[in-house]
Amino acid sequence: MHILVTNDDGVQAPGLLALAQAMRTLGQVTILAPNRNWSGAGHVKTLDHPLRVSETQIADGTPALTSDGAPSDCVALATLGLVENVDLVVSGINPYSNIGHDVTYSGTVTAAMEAVIAGVPGLAFSLASQDNRSGGLPDFGPAAQVAKQVAKKVMDEGLPEGVLLNVNVPYLKEFKGFLITRQGLRVYNDELVERVDPRGKLYYWIGGEEPTGVDEPGTDFGALQAGYISITPLQLDLTARDAMETLRAWNF
Amino acid sequence: MHILVTNDDGVQAPGLLALAQAMRTLGQVTILAPNRNWSGAGHVKTLDHPLRVSETQIADGTPALTSDGAPSDCVALATLGLVENVDLVVSGINPYSNIGHDVTYSGTVTAAMEAVIAGVPGLAFSLASQDNRSGGLPDFGPAAQVAKQVAKKVMDEGLPEGVLLNVNVPYLKEFKGFLITRQGLRVYNDELVERVDPRGKLYYWIGGEEPTGVDEPGTDFGALQAGYISITPLQLDLTARDAMETLRAWNF
Repeated sequence: MHILVTNDDGVQAPGLLALAQAMRTLGQVTILAPNRNWSGAGHVKTLDHPLRVSETQIADGTPALTSDGAPSDCVALATLGLVENVDLVVSGINPYSNIGHDVTYSGTVTAAMEAVIAGVPGLAFSLASQDNRSGGLPDFGPAAQVAKQVAKKVMDEGLPEGVLLNVNVPYLKEFKGFLITRQGLRVYNDELVERVDPRGKLYYWIGGEEPTGVDEPGTDFGALQAGYISITPLQLDLTARDAMETLRAWNF
Repeated sequence: MHILVTNDDGVQAPGLLALAQAMRTLGQVTILAPNRNWSGAGHVKTLDHPLRVSETQIADGTPALTSDGAPSDCVALATLGLVENVDLVVSGINPYSNIGHDVTYSGTVTAAMEAVIAGVPGLAFSLASQDNRSGGLPDFGPAAQVAKQVAKKVMDEGLPEGVLLNVNVPYLKEFKGFLITRQGLRVYNDELVERVDPRGKLYYWIGGEEPTGVDEPGTDFGALQAGYISITPLQLDLTARDAMETLRAWNF
């Protein structure tokens, strides 16, 4: 079993280290991850310029590959042949949860989307360490154990075609268990923040408070709030089937 | 009616000019579009650096705003308050179709996604001018008329909550009509292309032939192939509902 490990925080992120170490207990691991942070970068396919790949090593001395492409570019490079015979793509561990609409922005999740497009099972792992009240570097240990457990299950059972798993782990030492969830609703609290630069020109931040979510049972956010690990199966078919009849009645 | 016009090809793209001119016949138009090409850039939310917005004008002399952010950033900036009272967001006209999995990568489509997140109807328009055998600049005229027709209908009827429309127009002078479709399957023909730079170092292109699609009735690609305008309602809930039972049976 050959596992590709990537992420959206960059190859030197501690979440990737924890994930790579957990995956090494399950099979051969190759790391190919971005050389910088791509959080919120979306599902990228870089076609207008070439990509570089170089050799590096992560904090425990393990050799790794790193690229100037996005997380999904890293997966594309690997599955198009740069890395031979990839059986599974795992992405993370993101230090913040990826729930609700986050999945369309998240580099962690879109890396797993790219795996699905390449016909390889893809798993995205995120830790809700925004609930880490003590601050400081989060402990990725328990989430890495969860990643190992989920990856093992996927190796044994296989994933339905076209499906990736979006796994979110609450920031707790002990979990209530696993819940298979649907994508919930994020509540973004974004605000436009206007600033003036030292030369008197305006610039803008997308600012505001951290996003929250609608705490509904059965959803990713609801599961995290209740202390459960959330596993949401995602697909790349975004068709709003319920709306099709409505639109047909418009009689174009 | 106040319509925000954006795109992913950059504010000076001829497809945006055609779309803005068509929208001006329906209401007040504000243009806020990227200052460069963001094709294939995905659903971006730029949080790690601030964004600039400057004034410019497009080829017909109309004033426009342009930003160094992604298409979805432009929509976020506008709907967070930079542009007052946006009633409708239209994005395009992209010179190539956006069908199947393209919708997760496409800046044209993700701009309309961002509108939905902001609670504003979002419409993405793409012209399948890759079928423009004569080469040269495609004629956006017929597609702009389609955009006008669809936008008018959306203004009259309203869109179901959480739904955006992904409209693809075949590159024809006359259409067979409109079809309400589901998202089909893209067939990507990507290949890893390895090159050596003048200093002897390797670099990589994501290359290969143009993508095709599975020509299935009822899908976006199928509609285009048959000479119809395709309207696909999309949502941001990616839950693979069919897979939930399968996963529950795994007994985590």
